[in-house]
Amino acid sequence: MKKLQVAMIGGGGEGSFFGAVHRRAIAFDDTREVVAGALRSQPEAAMQAAADWGIRGYPDYPSMIEDIQQGRLQIDYVTIVTPNHQHFKPAKACIEAGIPVVCEKPMTMTVDEAEELARLVEQKNTPFVLAHTYTGHPMMMYARELVATGEIGEIRKIESWYNQGWLADKLEDAGVQQAGWRTDPQKAGLSNCGGDIGTHAMVAATWTSGLEVKNVSARLNSFVQGRLLDDDFNVLAQMSNGATALIWATQIAVGYKNDNGFRLFGSKGSLEWHQERAEKLLLRQGNCDQTYWLGANFDFWPESVASYLRVPAGHHEDFFEALANLHCTMERQLRRNRGENTPAPYPHPDVRTGVAGMRFVAAAVNSSKQQGAWTEV
Amino acid sequence: MKKLQVAMIGGGGEGSFFGAVHRRAIAFDDTREVVAGALRSQPEAAMQAAADWGIRGYPDYPSMIEDIQQGRLQIDYVTIVTPNHQHFKPAKACIEAGIPVVCEKPMTMTVDEAEELARLVEQKNTPFVLAHTYTGHPMMMYARELVATGEIGEIRKIESWYNQGWLADKLEDAGVQQAGWRTDPQKAGLSNCGGDIGTHAMVAATWTSGLEVKNVSARLNSFVQGRLLDDDFNVLAQMSNGATALIWATQIAVGYKNDNGFRLFGSKGSLEWHQERAEKLLLRQGNCDQTYWLGANFDFWPESVASYLRVPAGHHEDFFEALANLHCTMERQLRRNRGENTPAPYPHPDVRTGVAGMRFVAAAVNSSKQQGAWTEV
Amino acid sequence: MKKLQVAMIGGGGEGSFFGAVHRRAIAFDDTREVVAGALRSQPEAAMQAAADWGIRGYPDYPSMIEDIQQGRLQIDYVTIVTPNHQHFKPAKACIEAGIPVVCEKPMTMTVDEAEELARLVEQKNTPFVLAHTYTGHPMMMYARELVATGEIGEIRKIESWYNQGWLADKLEDAGVQQAGWRTDPQKAGLSNCGGDIGTHAMVAATWTSGLEVKNVSARLNSFVQGRLLDDDFNVLAQMSNGATALIWATQIAVGYKNDNGFRLFGSKGSLEWHQERAEKLLLRQGNCDQTYWLGANFDFWPESVASYLRVPAGHHEDFFEALANLHCTMERQLRRNRGENTPAPYPHPDVRTGVAGMRFVAAAVNSSKQQGAWTEV
Amino acid sequence: MKKLQVAMIGGGGEGSFFGAVHRRAIAFDDTREVVAGALRSQPEAAMQAAADWGIRGYPDYPSMIEDIQQGRLQIDYVTIVTPNHQHFKPAKACIEAGIPVVCEKPMTMTVDEAEELARLVEQKNTPFVLAHTYTGHPMMMYARELVATGEIGEIRKIESWYNQGWLADKLEDAGVQQAGWRTDPQKAGLSNCGGDIGTHAMVAATWTSGLEVKNVSARLNSFVQGRLLDDDFNVLAQMSNGATALIWATQIAVGYKNDNGFRLFGSKGSLEWHQERAEKLLLRQGNCDQTYWLGANFDFWPESVASYLRVPAGHHEDFFEALANLHCTMERQLRRNRGENTPAPYPHPDVRTGVAGMRFVAAAVNSSKQQGAWTEV
Repeated sequence: MKKLQVAMIGGGGEGSFFGAVHRRAIAFDDTREVVAGALRSQPEAAMQAAADWGIRGYPDYPSMIEDIQQGRLQIDYVTIVTPNHQHFKPAKACIEAGIPVVCEKPMTMTVDEAEELARLVEQKNTPFVLAHTYTGHPMMMYARELVATGEIGEIRKIESWYNQGWLADKLEDAGVQQAGWRTDPQKAGLSNCGGDIGTHAMVAATWTSGLEVKNVSARLNSFVQGRLLDDDFNVLAQMSNGATALIWATQIAVGYKNDNGFRLFGSKGSLEWHQERAEKLLLRQGNCDQTYWLGANFDFWPESVASYLRVPAGHHEDFFEALANLHCTMERQLRRNRGENTPAPYPHPDVRTGVAGMRFVAAAVNSSKQQGAWTEV
Repeated sequence: MKKLQVAMIGGGGEGSFFGAVHRRAIAFDDTREVVAGALRSQPEAAMQAAADWGIRGYPDYPSMIEDIQQGRLQIDYVTIVTPNHQHFKPAKACIEAGIPVVCEKPMTMTVDEAEELARLVEQKNTPFVLAHTYTGHPMMMYARELVATGEIGEIRKIESWYNQGWLADKLEDAGVQQAGWRTDPQKAGLSNCGGDIGTHAMVAATWTSGLEVKNVSARLNSFVQGRLLDDDFNVLAQMSNGATALIWATQIAVGYKNDNGFRLFGSKGSLEWHQERAEKLLLRQGNCDQTYWLGANFDFWPESVASYLRVPAGHHEDFFEALANLHCTMERQLRRNRGENTPAPYPHPDVRTGVAGMRFVAAAVNSSKQQGAWTEV
Repeated sequence: MKKLQVAMIGGGGEGSFFGAVHRRAIAFDDTREVVAGALRSQPEAAMQAAADWGIRGYPDYPSMIEDIQQGRLQIDYVTIVTPNHQHFKPAKACIEAGIPVVCEKPMTMTVDEAEELARLVEQKNTPFVLAHTYTGHPMMMYARELVATGEIGEIRKIESWYNQGWLADKLEDAGVQQAGWRTDPQKAGLSNCGGDIGTHAMVAATWTSGLEVKNVSARLNSFVQGRLLDDDFNVLAQMSNGATALIWATQIAVGYKNDNGFRLFGSKGSLEWHQERAEKLLLRQGNCDQTYWLGANFDFWPESVASYLRVPAGHHEDFFEALANLHCTMERQLRRNRGENTPAPYPHPDVRTGVAGMRFVAAAVNSSKQQGAWTEV
Repeated sequence: MKKLQVAMIGGGGEGSFFGAVHRRAIAFDDTREVVAGALRSQPEAAMQAAADWGIRGYPDYPSMIEDIQQGRLQIDYVTIVTPNHQHFKPAKACIEAGIPVVCEKPMTMTVDEAEELARLVEQKNTPFVLAHTYTGHPMMMYARELVATGEIGEIRKIESWYNQGWLADKLEDAGVQQAGWRTDPQKAGLSNCGGDIGTHAMVAATWTSGLEVKNVSARLNSFVQGRLLDDDFNVLAQMSNGATALIWATQIAVGYKNDNGFRLFGSKGSLEWHQERAEKLLLRQGNCDQTYWLGANFDFWPESVASYLRVPAGHHEDFFEALANLHCTMERQLRRNRGENTPAPYPHPDVRTGVAGMRFVAAAVNSSKQQGAWTEV
């Protein structure tokens, strides 16, 4: 089985975190490999980074796309790992060129951009996966299956959150690159906390439940003196079925690393999941709590989940495996399209999720400016 | 040391939960005892209940108060354990008669009633403890101490919650007494979920932090068909120092028993506590999580906390001990007032907490009716 | 219902921990009360302690027993809370006088003494409860029920442990009374760690499983320089059904408070319980872990367990409630004997458990002296 | 930076678990890749498996080694993933040919074989890593650092365990390949449970503490009817510094997946780690428990640990990352040897660990046969 060939846009900077992460997630299954890249915004740095990685380098993404279109570079899909404000243009260029895309989130800077990508994807029928990594966790997928099969009944209420503490101090003034672009309105867009991690909380609330956010009442805060964008993000939401959701995120929770998770309260049961204990899913129904583990027998899981598992009984999969699962979903789509035999790709977040995320953040920003007035998404 | 003599109003009903609980909390330290009571609203039933308990019975609380005032019944304080709508009148009568009161919460049906009690308590200088049981947990007391000594810096954000599942079905139609009066506007007042457990979440957010709730934006729901009062209660709050608080409670979280807790995020650290793991307090500041246990050496704790502990190193105290601690606070006040030597009473919730709670619930109900408009408390 | 009248032997010393604990456990349900006591070994101190408690004092236990026998003191049962080496004589005297006894553990200093008490109890048919407090935890009782009903099949292996850290330093030289008598062969007997907490681990392994220890291979250590008795206790055991048990205890596990618990591995499932999370019981059988909580609906539990519960749905009971349950078992036996209507007493540890415990410790001490040779219990 | 080229022996069978695991662990960092393999014992199947993987195939390992020696195949090291009884021969052949080896454990079938490999490695100075995967967990490495720097003082006692449940039924009769060879004396050697997972528990006890096992008293059981080798393994051990260790493993703990971990009790503190919560390390010293997380700031960790971390602040690494770390240690050794600039390789388990493991298992088997007589390792 020939490995899929992947090209990367962005991700080669020295302080870049997600470039190396995607690279590992792509390599992970030994069925995909990064072979080319326009890894940085400065042409020379981009060429140097590619040389360091030992892959074919391009000074910028247009020249790489040109080569792909001209058949001078054979790749199966592109992964976009640039800062938020640089997702839209390369994503648009790829989609227009018919090149499948795995794109980091938040998808774009504005709702208009997001909708334009969605229109293009529909027109061109281009495979597109949005890298909401946590949806790749098998227990989050299993939660979605349990909801879909009615195990917890009609959902009434949702809690979905993402607490971090790393921006409790003004790291952007201390030269920390990850902090710099996230808190810069020119690079991060309307929202820092909401866009960066609030969207993860929104996706946890919607993707697992199958519901959409209809209206929001929000309060955004900038607790750190002098910060231009929000570092705290609180939303009360009305969901498409009448349920209420509390969706919140913060970056000033000192000592909290990655406290992301959700609770779904249905008429017949409840589900609870924590990213920091990703291998477990808690189902509450009657007089005992049921905890499902990644470690269950292989044949216990529905095929949709089991086909993504790499470790039988008792070992854990975590962050890299979750992201690798999204690349795996792209891989399955591509192999299926060319007639290869693979299990079905899971319905992981796509370009429509990106549109919903942008609308959600924009509505929350607007609501907050209007003293929490209920605002349609 | 002579035991304090306690009289009880309410608590003798067959389905009554809190009567037996207070009775045990009073007896617990073997320094207080229930000796008299007007235990039920029906005179005959009241006399029978007292006979069953083996204490001096009264057909109604006025006749008991009459006896106390006339010196025919010697008691040190009264405990009020009636349903919500029957707190105000006996509390008022006791305070006016100068009888110290431990009162169940929510304190009254209306803000006006609450304020009237507060005025009377101030006039008469009557000892008054409001039974927010969880504040009796030593780790919640220790959290309050850590905040007060500046350990976590200025508080920026608070999460405070109370998730239960027992009203996910319409138990009030199934004859469950505890469900009946709580969901009946005549007996529970403006709010079911907010009054019953939302006030606990509010107290966790304010009592530990030393902050007050200034404004609220709320959404209350009645998820169970045909229920007249809220069974779900969500509040975004502005605190007196500018912090934001998320305060929520629900009774429809299937399988959740008593998931009450808080997170306080300060500029220098965070505190987290869960009532269901009441013996632990989590302090996060630097690179490791610090978990304090009830089990620490006795001499570790500040005297204010240590003087309430009953078990050295390694055993837990829980619900009954927490409530006993509130009775202990009343006991210390009374013994101090008469010149006995006891450790200082801890500043547990009092009549002002009751006023704040009633205002909070009323403001949340109003805000919810006005689509979440920010409402002053 | 008249309260049971209880007399106490020991427990009044200033450094005494268990005296106050039993006193609270007796008072807890407001159906029993301590009314008399020979609380200390020095007559004057004993009288003073009783005066401080506000109960009828005796200078020594023989004079108290004399009064009971002569009808000058009416009590229902005696609780013995003296140091280990002073259990036997008062227990023997009470049993011979036909006075029911709740006795602290380890029951005696020697196997011979234990067997003598057992013979006397059988002759006199005197109610006798041995205060293995943890067996009063409802989840430990429920574990025993699940084993008895075959839920986990035939037991193959047991882990049972008790890790503490408080004796990691030589506290006996620092004047800590609790450390002093426990590490003194004259007062503690053959073994410190084994007798004090190893017996708890043994009881967890036997009482829940319904099995007996047949043979042991043991290694005892005294890790703290100059300590005369063991502070570390390790036993491999053959159980009556052929199962193997690992039973261990230590007092030098720095920072461990009261890490007592067990795992029972049966042919059809496993049970796990931790004293420090006493409200939960873990049952593992198939593909999900089932966690039972004290918080389950009242009507879920078998009557044998439910009749001991004080808190419906969602609140915890802990150490004091567990010990109160043992006094409750004594209370039920006594009330039943006189024809009162009470639920059935649970088969909590009794004098035979005390004999088994002494034999177990003696066999372990012998095995350790013989390089771990398998030794019959 | 050129990727290291890796050849694999074994691992290509259809039911093989570890072949795919090593393949992913090798590919993970995108700095190593499997390029060749003798993947199965049947020549044709071996060639087919290699074709399926898309690598250069060999019908057997001798022909592959021949090609390597003749310079016809350029590889940097070999990974051996055959069943236990087939480790020795290819390992010996590789070492003799001067080819570096990452070898699965247990290293050999007999102590003699293990010692022969150790002698050869010393003679030839061949890099050799033994795949005790769990030692690759950063928190296990950090535990080792804390011990080495004296953080917990002199170690007095160790608990080290490995509980699994997957062999509670006789899966070897149901055609489960993983069960088949492990319970077959011809393929697994002296011991099933001891060799397969007991050695992990031993390594946890020795590698983290820096101590050796001197003497053992053991009891092995075969609980499942008709099983020829042990499925339960219990060892009391005397360590080189006089400490006592409890080392146990079982495969009949129904519902337990991979409950592997250790507790180290030192004179100044205790460490606790669980493989199923691999991202956390618990340090207990004074009045609060300190929990270290993988999620701490990068610059918190000692360079020896930090240089192995892939995820900054707040995400987890798990099983694959741990194994990848062992391959990374091999990679660092090789790159250093050729003068490339890499961080120092960590002292992960090597051929001497393999010898110690074999001696440990052999001594335990002998002790068990002699009724637990203390046996020198």
